[in-house]
Amino acid sequence: MIDPIVLKGFRDSLPSEEIPKKNIERKLESVFETFGFVPIDTPVLEYESVLLGKGGGETDKQIFHFEDNGGRKVAMRFDLTVPFARFLALHHSELPLPFKRYHIAKAWRGENPQKGRYREFIQCDFDIVGVDSAEADFEILSLMYASFNTLGITNLTFHVASRAIFNEFLEKLNVKDKSIEILRAVDKLRKIGDAEVRNILLDITKDEETADKIISYITSSEGLNFIETVEKIESLIGGESENVLRMKTIYSYLKENGIDKYFVYDPSITRGLDYYTGIVYETFLNDAEQIGSVCSGGRYNNLASLYTKEILPGVGASIGLDRLLAALNELNSPLAKDNKGANVVIFYSEEEKDKAVKTAFGLRTKGLATDMYLLPNKKAKAQYEYAEKLSIPYSLQFKDDGYLVKNLKTRETNMIKDIDGVIEICR
Amino acid sequence: MIDPIVLKGFRDSLPSEEIPKKNIERKLESVFETFGFVPIDTPVLEYESVLLGKGGGETDKQIFHFEDNGGRKVAMRFDLTVPFARFLALHHSELPLPFKRYHIAKAWRGENPQKGRYREFIQCDFDIVGVDSAEADFEILSLMYASFNTLGITNLTFHVASRAIFNEFLEKLNVKDKSIEILRAVDKLRKIGDAEVRNILLDITKDEETADKIISYITSSEGLNFIETVEKIESLIGGESENVLRMKTIYSYLKENGIDKYFVYDPSITRGLDYYTGIVYETFLNDAEQIGSVCSGGRYNNLASLYTKEILPGVGASIGLDRLLAALNELNSPLAKDNKGANVVIFYSEEEKDKAVKTAFGLRTKGLATDMYLLPNKKAKAQYEYAEKLSIPYSLQFKDDGYLVKNLKTRETNMIKDIDGVIEICR
Repeated sequence: MIDPIVLKGFRDSLPSEEIPKKNIERKLESVFETFGFVPIDTPVLEYESVLLGKGGGETDKQIFHFEDNGGRKVAMRFDLTVPFARFLALHHSELPLPFKRYHIAKAWRGENPQKGRYREFIQCDFDIVGVDSAEADFEILSLMYASFNTLGITNLTFHVASRAIFNEFLEKLNVKDKSIEILRAVDKLRKIGDAEVRNILLDITKDEETADKIISYITSSEGLNFIETVEKIESLIGGESENVLRMKTIYSYLKENGIDKYFVYDPSITRGLDYYTGIVYETFLNDAEQIGSVCSGGRYNNLASLYTKEILPGVGASIGLDRLLAALNELNSPLAKDNKGANVVIFYSEEEKDKAVKTAFGLRTKGLATDMYLLPNKKAKAQYEYAEKLSIPYSLQFKDDGYLVKNLKTRETNMIKDIDGVIEICR
Repeated sequence: MIDPIVLKGFRDSLPSEEIPKKNIERKLESVFETFGFVPIDTPVLEYESVLLGKGGGETDKQIFHFEDNGGRKVAMRFDLTVPFARFLALHHSELPLPFKRYHIAKAWRGENPQKGRYREFIQCDFDIVGVDSAEADFEILSLMYASFNTLGITNLTFHVASRAIFNEFLEKLNVKDKSIEILRAVDKLRKIGDAEVRNILLDITKDEETADKIISYITSSEGLNFIETVEKIESLIGGESENVLRMKTIYSYLKENGIDKYFVYDPSITRGLDYYTGIVYETFLNDAEQIGSVCSGGRYNNLASLYTKEILPGVGASIGLDRLLAALNELNSPLAKDNKGANVVIFYSEEEKDKAVKTAFGLRTKGLATDMYLLPNKKAKAQYEYAEKLSIPYSLQFKDDGYLVKNLKTRETNMIKDIDGVIEICR
């Protein structure tokens, strides 16, 4: 006998989890399509050199990689961004440009599993490639808003900043050459607090005044709204710049379309990764901030440069579906619990098999989600347990020449003459 | 620069392929749910021993397998059936039984790529576990019919047979001990013809009469309809049996529900794999038979026995989505070509940016799939090429105080006063 276990850090998804997950994916896909975004897919396996962006050297330990039977060094994708960059380099001449794509799919990382972190996880990415403008940036922000709105999540805050403006600030402080280390330090503000971040900044810059100025910059939104913060930042970098102007335009779009109240300008948002070149953002649920950002991204103007000379500026965001689902569970969202199977289940006896098959066929042909409980000899208790496990709201039994339909929650019963009557009740 | 290539046998899916694929998946999921089937998911990676059903020995060369960073022998799933058996062994006590699940997901095999065969492919499986009855068998057959019907495919034939009845026949011929080899030989009939199969059977049985009898059995449907064939088979095995009775009941369900004309009893269908124990079936498109079966399966009464002592009889089928999509393409089905993006695309100038953003926001809020062509300085030619690549049917431009809506196929234009008017035309 083989032990039927799954690997550490991996999970099965039972219907009680898979149904809500699918519902969420469908709602998101429908919003993406309303915004004119189209789906793509890429292989789960790629050349290791393509995914890691280098020919050899020490392989990232977190990646699942191996040699295939043909001796090729291959790896499983660890996000959807790198394969997308490779995809763009290969196909940009066939694609409509600007190209708006979404991609909902799994990725894998061998990191040590912790609460809410798995080695197999679902990413949901949406990007616009081929244009660098405030309108494109706003398309992504408004799509982020619409995505959560469609899931019934409106008690949330989008934290926006600009990597480009921050770089201008670092240039003014003469520490531009240390920007990557500084960005990584600033990225930790939410986790370790400003005193600790100041210590790291001091280590990096060896200058108290510079460290203080950076701390003052990244905490400059305190007590201020979006546009006030942008104006304060503007004065800190020494006056208007193209990047500040871009941010003001984006803000005007947020305001004109009535969604500005969901957005704050938060100069501490930098997104640790170094490929961002413009706007960056993270998203926090007001009632579950501790879960971390549920949707993050930004503008990157050189993403595909590893694979092509073509300049393909892009802006996009990524929703971590597993984390979002965990958050919805924590918030007791009905969305996380909607695991309804069929609308009605037919209970029948041995003698009623023909009738049951025919009734199921008829109801389904008319579009009613209908289950048959396929064990005709079972007691009522087993029948009801079955219906409850599948959250089926109605049962149907045969009585005289009609149908006895029972609401399994209220226990209310109705005698119905024909199939259309059954559909009317159970729909 | 890194070459942006994909691995041999793998493919990117561009929107022109991914949109129809998603449409097909959604239609299938909707049918599955109408039949009361619920979704599950399992990990892409499993212990090699779990997937290959043995602790060690020579690994199947077609499987992608490797040692992970923790020294575990792991493999990528090569179908959805084996993981489902493992899933059942692990979770059967939490599941509603009988359990009806569907699973649409990728699987991987390292076989040599040929036309229409890839190393990464999508399977679409649906099964009922926990019951062994004609009603359960019919649920799967009628779901197969409904699946293709919902895709607009009605010019097809389901070829049904019974592995159990065939085994009775082999017992009668005293060659039951060679049944696996015989089944494999019979499975080749469609490919190599009856003369060639007879030679192989002769090799196996060393007896001309036995070989002839088997050939006569597997070709016994010639000129006969479903029930006539079953009756002929019945006489060949020497009278009624439970298995024949089961098949007659299934046929009566097909007939009573008016779908018998899509089914033939074809005694040559055996499904080479040895885990089937009852009904088996394959599905051929009448206009594209050469493509092979697009949906196959059958009853297996010991599937999870490698992992558990629990007896879990099952019946199910599997649609090969890549093969189906290839067939739909070959048949010029509109389903394979439906790669429509948004309903309308907004073309605007630099000066109209504000208006464009606001109009897009308004149309999307009301549910109309709306794209903005984000390069406001481009010529009309570039605009139309963009819309054409995305099969967007309408364009919108600003004129005076209203909207100029153009049908991009007929070139017909309309001046519209308000957003609701735009929605009415473009919906």
